[in-house]
Amino acid sequence: MIGTLAIVGVGLLGGSVAKAARAAGLAREIVGIGRDRGRLEAALRDRAVDRVTTDLEAGVRGADFVLLGVPVLAIEALLARVWRAASDGVTLTDVGSTKASIVRAAERLAAERPLAFVGSHPMAGSEQSGYGVARADLFQGATVILTPTDRSEPGTVKAVAGFWEAMGGRVSTLDPETHDRVVAAISHLPHLVAYALTDGVARFQPEALEFAARGFKDTTRIAASDPGVWTEIFLANREALRANLEAFRLVLADLERAIAMGSGDALRAMLERIKAAREALR
Amino acid sequence: MIGTLAIVGVGLLGGSVAKAARAAGLAREIVGIGRDRGRLEAALRDRAVDRVTTDLEAGVRGADFVLLGVPVLAIEALLARVWRAASDGVTLTDVGSTKASIVRAAERLAAERPLAFVGSHPMAGSEQSGYGVARADLFQGATVILTPTDRSEPGTVKAVAGFWEAMGGRVSTLDPETHDRVVAAISHLPHLVAYALTDGVARFQPEALEFAARGFKDTTRIAASDPGVWTEIFLANREALRANLEAFRLVLADLERAIAMGSGDALRAMLERIKAAREALR
Repeated sequence: MIGTLAIVGVGLLGGSVAKAARAAGLAREIVGIGRDRGRLEAALRDRAVDRVTTDLEAGVRGADFVLLGVPVLAIEALLARVWRAASDGVTLTDVGSTKASIVRAAERLAAERPLAFVGSHPMAGSEQSGYGVARADLFQGATVILTPTDRSEPGTVKAVAGFWEAMGGRVSTLDPETHDRVVAAISHLPHLVAYALTDGVARFQPEALEFAARGFKDTTRIAASDPGVWTEIFLANREALRANLEAFRLVLADLERAIAMGSGDALRAMLERIKAAREALR
Repeated sequence: MIGTLAIVGVGLLGGSVAKAARAAGLAREIVGIGRDRGRLEAALRDRAVDRVTTDLEAGVRGADFVLLGVPVLAIEALLARVWRAASDGVTLTDVGSTKASIVRAAERLAAERPLAFVGSHPMAGSEQSGYGVARADLFQGATVILTPTDRSEPGTVKAVAGFWEAMGGRVSTLDPETHDRVVAAISHLPHLVAYALTDGVARFQPEALEFAARGFKDTTRIAASDPGVWTEIFLANREALRANLEAFRLVLADLERAIAMGSGDALRAMLERIKAAREALR
């Protein structure tokens, strides 16, 4: 059991960690740290946290386990302050959707002062955001990718894995660079494409939107995702995103060529192959 | 009440029309016409149809209302045969996802022999197909677009609208060319993009697929759609699809430029605008 768990950022992810950790009896005391008093007080009223503070250093000091539950660029911005304020025996992790730059920053800080850090990416977002939609069961069955490096202590990896598993998460590990390529492919590019699909219709053929049915709505659901969070993700992972965009454009051009040439058999063979790949996912 | 309703093609759409028409008491007799004996007999066993035949002309002859429930190119291929076999007082409609070429073909046939035809597009598909997934409630609350022209009789439009409304559909009308542009935007392009997103990952980064979560699955759900049906739709509506692809590429390039330049504020403003457009859809 963790003595004091400090959560920096009590939004959808941080708030859900607080609720899930409480439900699982994972920590004796949970501290909520944030800038928004109203949000912190809502978490306090729900008993998701035991105390709250807007003072980052005061909240982190003395905690046994610190989770950075803010968006990616904010994690990078706050990491050095958390590192300085934290106690020697602390275990640190985060929820950032990109990992290479966060893990590099942590390793630079660890060179000065060795602290137990392993990056985490709980793949349990939503197009909704904020503490209001936080849920104790958000991580039940969700994949959580840990990104240890050859400098990570096995004990730290085990502690962070156990933390997520206690909340229902299914833990995998990838090195930080592989992680960033993987999530560019299966999350960041789909988000970018969903934003573009929505905007293409909204800008050039808005009268079509009233006929949108389930296909359009499912395909573009994630275009309602939080613009602040996704601005940070797209910028933080732009290189892997660009490589994936190239692959996407190549494939789209193949399909388009078959359509333009009226090659029904070739087109159908491509769609058969793609359908099989998609169905293998279920 | 319709005397005899003949349904050409007893798959997801045709089979659902049979079940919905039966449930609504819409016809005294329902005839299922198709090539696949097994599928026809399944519909007979379910009492979704009263009799079945693999002979198109025999099935259509004497019917008061004929629905072409097959994919778009098959509708075009069968329309002339249906037109010749049908009785004088018949009302004809179809379920094709593209309308301009079908309606043009019907008007050519009507110039020789005037029959009551109005095109329909029930927007109630699924990534699944076949009689096995047909449901009596498929059209409940679904948008059904009718595509009358200035040559359509008001009485025919009313009869076809009443047919779909009796099964729970919400009927709108568009001219056939506008219809094709609208569905290219909100259905055909999203399908093409979903196929491309899936294939880009499957071909260039298959190891990422095991980490696919809800965002990827929702965005690519329709990439499991029937390859035969979608080959026909893409080919039949290739012009409107190309125009929509251009709009999509333009918007995607705008987003990509903001990311490449690290223009966080500009990117965020774009995502805010798109999120608002997407949320207006709910």
